[in-house]
Amino acid sequence: MNAPKPRIAVTMGDPAGVGPEICLHLLARAEVADVCTPIVFGDNRLLRRVASQLHLPFPVPVVAVDDWEDNFADIHEPVVLDLPFLESVGDVRPGAVSAGCGEAAYHYILSSIDAALAGQVAAVCTGPINKEALHAAGYPYPGHTEIFAERMQAERSCMMLTSEAITCSLVTVHVGYCEAATLLSTARILEVVELTAAAMRRIRNREPRLAVCGLNPHAGEHGLFGQGEEERIILPAIEAAQAAGLQIEGPLPPDTAFLPDKRAETDAYICMYHDQGLIPLKALAFESAINITLGLPIVRTSVDHGTAFDIAWKGTANPSSMVQAVLLAAKLCGQRHS
Amino acid sequence: MNAPKPRIAVTMGDPAGVGPEICLHLLARAEVADVCTPIVFGDNRLLRRVASQLHLPFPVPVVAVDDWEDNFADIHEPVVLDLPFLESVGDVRPGAVSAGCGEAAYHYILSSIDAALAGQVAAVCTGPINKEALHAAGYPYPGHTEIFAERMQAERSCMMLTSEAITCSLVTVHVGYCEAATLLSTARILEVVELTAAAMRRIRNREPRLAVCGLNPHAGEHGLFGQGEEERIILPAIEAAQAAGLQIEGPLPPDTAFLPDKRAETDAYICMYHDQGLIPLKALAFESAINITLGLPIVRTSVDHGTAFDIAWKGTANPSSMVQAVLLAAKLCGQRHS
Repeated sequence: MNAPKPRIAVTMGDPAGVGPEICLHLLARAEVADVCTPIVFGDNRLLRRVASQLHLPFPVPVVAVDDWEDNFADIHEPVVLDLPFLESVGDVRPGAVSAGCGEAAYHYILSSIDAALAGQVAAVCTGPINKEALHAAGYPYPGHTEIFAERMQAERSCMMLTSEAITCSLVTVHVGYCEAATLLSTARILEVVELTAAAMRRIRNREPRLAVCGLNPHAGEHGLFGQGEEERIILPAIEAAQAAGLQIEGPLPPDTAFLPDKRAETDAYICMYHDQGLIPLKALAFESAINITLGLPIVRTSVDHGTAFDIAWKGTANPSSMVQAVLLAAKLCGQRHS
Repeated sequence: MNAPKPRIAVTMGDPAGVGPEICLHLLARAEVADVCTPIVFGDNRLLRRVASQLHLPFPVPVVAVDDWEDNFADIHEPVVLDLPFLESVGDVRPGAVSAGCGEAAYHYILSSIDAALAGQVAAVCTGPINKEALHAAGYPYPGHTEIFAERMQAERSCMMLTSEAITCSLVTVHVGYCEAATLLSTARILEVVELTAAAMRRIRNREPRLAVCGLNPHAGEHGLFGQGEEERIILPAIEAAQAAGLQIEGPLPPDTAFLPDKRAETDAYICMYHDQGLIPLKALAFESAINITLGLPIVRTSVDHGTAFDIAWKGTANPSSMVQAVLLAAKLCGQRHS
């Protein structure tokens, strides 16, 4: 391992959530610093306020934003990149939705994207944001994935959630129940299949076994339920993927797709709508899953949990999901460069 | 316990599936005979053929169908009620779909319903049927629930699946993905809430804690996704149930509704569509869940697994789900009479 460790931007997330606390923990983790150089894109004074309140060490140097451009290439140990977007650090109330925190969280993300596009960091791992705060600040995005896709003008992207127990990619994400069905197309499903296959090949270091869920109960049961979406839309995508040499099966009846025996022989599921994938993922993996945006020009991972406003700044937040998300980002960009 | 044990009709299911084998096991179980009198509604010669092939005992007497009416009241130990609906027992091939087996399976069900309506049995527990066989025989039902509801002219009924890990009732069941949304109404949701509350009160012997899922991702996130189904349709049902004194919350975001902490404080979920309930139920409870049809004039439970044609007549079928389904039926009808 003579290659330099990749620099990974870690956004602090909403200042009023658990993001600052888990970033402080992350910066102190040797297993993280061993494989990459995490750079927290956040607020120095806010992080110090949280560290002081929770009696946590502030374990790393701070880089001023004006010094970043000239010096990023020399950063080989964990640091905080100070982005003073908060108007008043003293006004931040833990657990409270505010436009000011939404504004700051949004700009940590934009700064990390720009750093990634400029080649200053090899990957981005995002901390939890609060959607209401983001919207209050005037940014009507449903989540990180959409901000990244838009900012990077990604033509093909999708959200994948991965955990020890189960991995799911989503064909449609943050749209209404009825709208999801109207957005399905063979081309979009095939796109998600291909993005998922490429990502799982990197994660598993072998050809992955994929499974595609149907849309209707019992995958339509040969036309008994639904409007033939399985035969008309989903099956042609599976056949095209098989013709291209992928190991893929389906459309599976959604309710039996996630039985233990089937999970054991499936590296990733392609799910038609948000809850088809996220219900089994969260039921089985709790909140330990890692969220990856596939199809971007850069590697982007994220914790799957939210801002957890109810336990913000209380010293009880668990950083393990963030640690795993950064380690996975390091693994993915390391392999990408090799 | 001086009350007589309830007689419970147990339908044999599709002759070509695992039903006959698990019925033979059930009839030999002391823990079943201790609390109820199981009466297998099936085919004597077919059961003997399976017993012989698998070297299983045939542990109980056989009652001819012509003797049933006059003698049912004197039956206090497990028996087989011989219903010779199969044209040729010798022609039944294990694991094969056939109209003949579908025809027979359908008539075991009808006979059990009629026996229940006549007060000859206190409850019905159904063995697994094959939908394709049923349809080949000319009975286009999606499942048991609909046969029971139609035959009993039940005005209000719903399917509930219960297991150690999780219990779900379904507002819509065997309809297409898009159609499910069009079938939601406040009145129907309240009906399912009330049926579920009544059943869980009997199962838990206390007032149950209920949770209602939203329809859209994140339960619509305050109108961000979907067509306001949560506010327009679901919330009014919850408020009406709360006004009636029920312990009920929602609409919950479906993906976090089934996290372990939430499951621990929820006795039953009311789910808007088939896979919203059955994906987490099967992922968590495997195939051990018991299916109960609520709202019928009689108690009806069922195994949740299918005919398992791949292992039919091989001696490897696990009867535990059937045993649990019969025990739950005995518990429910015992309490109903008390």
